[in-house]
Amino acid sequence: MKSPVALIPQLAGHLIAAGGKRLRPVMTLAAAQLCNYNGDRHIGLAACVEFIHTATLLHDDVVDESDLRRGQASANAIWGNEASVLVGDFLFSRAFQLMTADGSLDVLRILSDASAVIAEGEVLQLMTANEPTTSEEAYLDVIRSKTATLFAAATQIGAVVADRPKAEEEALESYGMNLGIAFQLIDDVLDYSADQQALGKTVGDDFRDGKVTLPVILAYRRGDDAERDFWNRTIANQDQKDGDLDEAMRLMTAHETLSDTVERARHYGSIARDALGIFPNSEVKTVLIDLIDFVIRRAY
Amino acid sequence: MKSPVALIPQLAGHLIAAGGKRLRPVMTLAAAQLCNYNGDRHIGLAACVEFIHTATLLHDDVVDESDLRRGQASANAIWGNEASVLVGDFLFSRAFQLMTADGSLDVLRILSDASAVIAEGEVLQLMTANEPTTSEEAYLDVIRSKTATLFAAATQIGAVVADRPKAEEEALESYGMNLGIAFQLIDDVLDYSADQQALGKTVGDDFRDGKVTLPVILAYRRGDDAERDFWNRTIANQDQKDGDLDEAMRLMTAHETLSDTVERARHYGSIARDALGIFPNSEVKTVLIDLIDFVIRRAY
Repeated sequence: MKSPVALIPQLAGHLIAAGGKRLRPVMTLAAAQLCNYNGDRHIGLAACVEFIHTATLLHDDVVDESDLRRGQASANAIWGNEASVLVGDFLFSRAFQLMTADGSLDVLRILSDASAVIAEGEVLQLMTANEPTTSEEAYLDVIRSKTATLFAAATQIGAVVADRPKAEEEALESYGMNLGIAFQLIDDVLDYSADQQALGKTVGDDFRDGKVTLPVILAYRRGDDAERDFWNRTIANQDQKDGDLDEAMRLMTAHETLSDTVERARHYGSIARDALGIFPNSEVKTVLIDLIDFVIRRAY
Repeated sequence: MKSPVALIPQLAGHLIAAGGKRLRPVMTLAAAQLCNYNGDRHIGLAACVEFIHTATLLHDDVVDESDLRRGQASANAIWGNEASVLVGDFLFSRAFQLMTADGSLDVLRILSDASAVIAEGEVLQLMTANEPTTSEEAYLDVIRSKTATLFAAATQIGAVVADRPKAEEEALESYGMNLGIAFQLIDDVLDYSADQQALGKTVGDDFRDGKVTLPVILAYRRGDDAERDFWNRTIANQDQKDGDLDEAMRLMTAHETLSDTVERARHYGSIARDALGIFPNSEVKTVLIDLIDFVIRRAY
């Protein structure tokens, strides 16, 4: 994060000091360890993964006009959108500098591909926003792109740096991708959970922004005409009044769409678990499997 | 620019179809030719340079809240800031995908370094905005970072792709850096030139934004107390009224700061010209030297 331009370490440091789970870099470190990697390149590459993630968070908060991130004032709320856009660009460039210094074209390919797919996913989300008729498949495409791809890249490069056979690389990519899907599904459930406040977020942000996530998609599909009118008014037309969030949560509870979204997440979690089947048991394998449970348990 | 997400080619195509001089990619192509390069890698790399430039333009227009770019409605004015931020991220990622496919770690190092320096320069500019006491050196630091570094990288990679000795690489880097400084100085003069409208821009945009460029820095330093009060009110305090732009231009004319900024540009143009001295005469060398005159002549 070092730079002679003081605002850069200041702004980037604010976001990083605010905490966060650091899931993605941990996944790179654990994947490399699972592959019996003995060097130290995975540490710098884990930092690259977190820098790319941090850059997308900074830009996301500008796009979403968020005031809060990780329970603290968001960078754009403190320093303005301009600084968030530019420091995001800086961190993104820094990640590519670090990867270039590392020197693996395979890692560069995986993470530049992931970055392009993430940006595509974010644009796709922007274009499909406020559309309650969005299909489950289209929604999965978005979360695969915007979230799961970086999880997949994070674990895949653990195998690449350890120079492991293609099958292990693909197993770790699959683990990351499916864990990432589960993670985002649970994140979308949590947005409607009262426990949210413990994570420093506000309940119902997605609803107020008109974001169409799986709990809403299922409620729309399972609802009657009056209910669909409700979703069309609140989500598609963004015409919301007091009590609408409560009504939305009542409908999602009645149709069990929150618990069924958790069920869907368990499905992807199972795929992630099986993907690791080709690796012998070890302490770090247990950590990676526990991580699946951790990601899904957040929903309670 | 291809992507299954329709808005990406649409938005990127809008900006690219609007024209622009395509100076930077032309510089990569010409530099490679000057180095007697016979392959075709320089074409893809020239596209990378233009993509990085396009990404920074998209983000700049969000940061500056510009409505106009290359004489057309800016992308953020048509599709909103969100789309501009994300499509900029996409083009930036795409550039790194293309470079990775090309496979030169030297090129990756030069362009990832340049990207980080550009972002630093933009943040620096943000932090020093509205400060008429900015020194000429500090201003040069900003334009070196935000503009000249990409010019330097564009020509340098022409030598890298042709696998030329370090001296030629450095000569082309110096040519690009100094041409880039001259280019930005002239750009800053043009902002106060009536001919501006021909370029699809509005006269006095920098003044209204309170941007401190060399013509203002010199006018402040050469002005008396009353004049400095004027600059402090209009630039530092952003308190502007009708007739202020005319007064600013009158002061800059009285102190000859526009013509002296062109003189400064000629100085950097001369360094750029001499940097090419180690290359034998050729048609493409004449083109690169004519480019210096073209960049400076724009001011008339």
